[in-house]
Amino acid sequence: MESQSKSSKDGASARGDVKMAERPPMAVRCPDLLLRALALALTLAAAVMVGVDKESKTVSVTISQSLTLHVRATAKWQYMSAFVYFLVSNAVACSYAAASLVYVTVAGAARSAKAALAINVLDTVMMGLLLSASGASAAIGVIAQHGNSHVQWNKVCHAFGSYCHQMAAAFTLCLVGSFAFLLLAVLYVMDLHKKAMSR
Amino acid sequence: MESQSKSSKDGASARGDVKMAERPPMAVRCPDLLLRALALALTLAAAVMVGVDKESKTVSVTISQSLTLHVRATAKWQYMSAFVYFLVSNAVACSYAAASLVYVTVAGAARSAKAALAINVLDTVMMGLLLSASGASAAIGVIAQHGNSHVQWNKVCHAFGSYCHQMAAAFTLCLVGSFAFLLLAVLYVMDLHKKAMSR
Repeated sequence: MESQSKSSKDGASARGDVKMAERPPMAVRCPDLLLRALALALTLAAAVMVGVDKESKTVSVTISQSLTLHVRATAKWQYMSAFVYFLVSNAVACSYAAASLVYVTVAGAARSAKAALAINVLDTVMMGLLLSASGASAAIGVIAQHGNSHVQWNKVCHAFGSYCHQMAAAFTLCLVGSFAFLLLAVLYVMDLHKKAMSR
Repeated sequence: MESQSKSSKDGASARGDVKMAERPPMAVRCPDLLLRALALALTLAAAVMVGVDKESKTVSVTISQSLTLHVRATAKWQYMSAFVYFLVSNAVACSYAAASLVYVTVAGAARSAKAALAINVLDTVMMGLLLSASGASAAIGVIAQHGNSHVQWNKVCHAFGSYCHQMAAAFTLCLVGSFAFLLLAVLYVMDLHKKAMSR
């Protein structure tokens, strides 16, 4: 009887372990939801900031000593492929963050282990996507701010200061968003690691 | 006696499980070493290709209709901050790949679980670093190839074709290197996942 009772207790404990394995602990699930919501907000803000960023100025262009033209010039994201990539990447990451947030909230503890694994891989991919977009926009931003005399690319931020500041703010949001995705990936791996080591 | 024998067998099995948990299966360790060596080779090749990439040309600069200057111009990585970042990022990723390859080879099955976790996080960070460097160099590459009339940044690849081709090759190697790091991170998570779910 004692042996049976022990076996039954062990069985219950084993079932409890399986449940624990399928259900991420609360300490991990709360930061997961918060970080996902943060990534959603940051990438949405970054995409919107770039999308609405537009500045028009009258710029003086010197053709010769006696001829100076005054041209109305506009700065907007469609004019630079790096900013198009930046906006699209943030929109993709934002859509993914929204979809994964809904899934994680609705499925909750009932979500399958394979789905959790797929979400982890996608979190990592989103981090990479946002970092590549940040790199692209930063590279253009540096030239726009300081120019490059070696290739005769003149700086433009002295004329479109407001546009450049807004782009820099969007870049910062995107960078923080990518760190949120990195943290999501690391938290999941640490949780898996604990489970694997507690065998 | 039977109970004792079973308990002893279970104990041995439990010890076996712990050993299995500490020691990554061979099926995962082999791709791990290969991918790490691949990442090392790719990032080293990318860094060297950018480091030695240099092209000098005599370029004609038209000052006015009657005055055209012939200037000796040189293209090299130090002249563009995005390429400096690209080279440094690849050098950092290459050094890390070499150090982690040595560690994984020497420590082998005896490496601690925490060290394996730290390596996984660093693999993910290296992927992000390489992707941001790829994004930065691609953004500059697009302008160098096609120019941008909106900001009056002229294309330069028509004059420095060989330089641009070598940079494009280095960019491709860096991109493949970043996918090698992504694959390393994903393989580790899949391995952990299997262990956690096999409880």
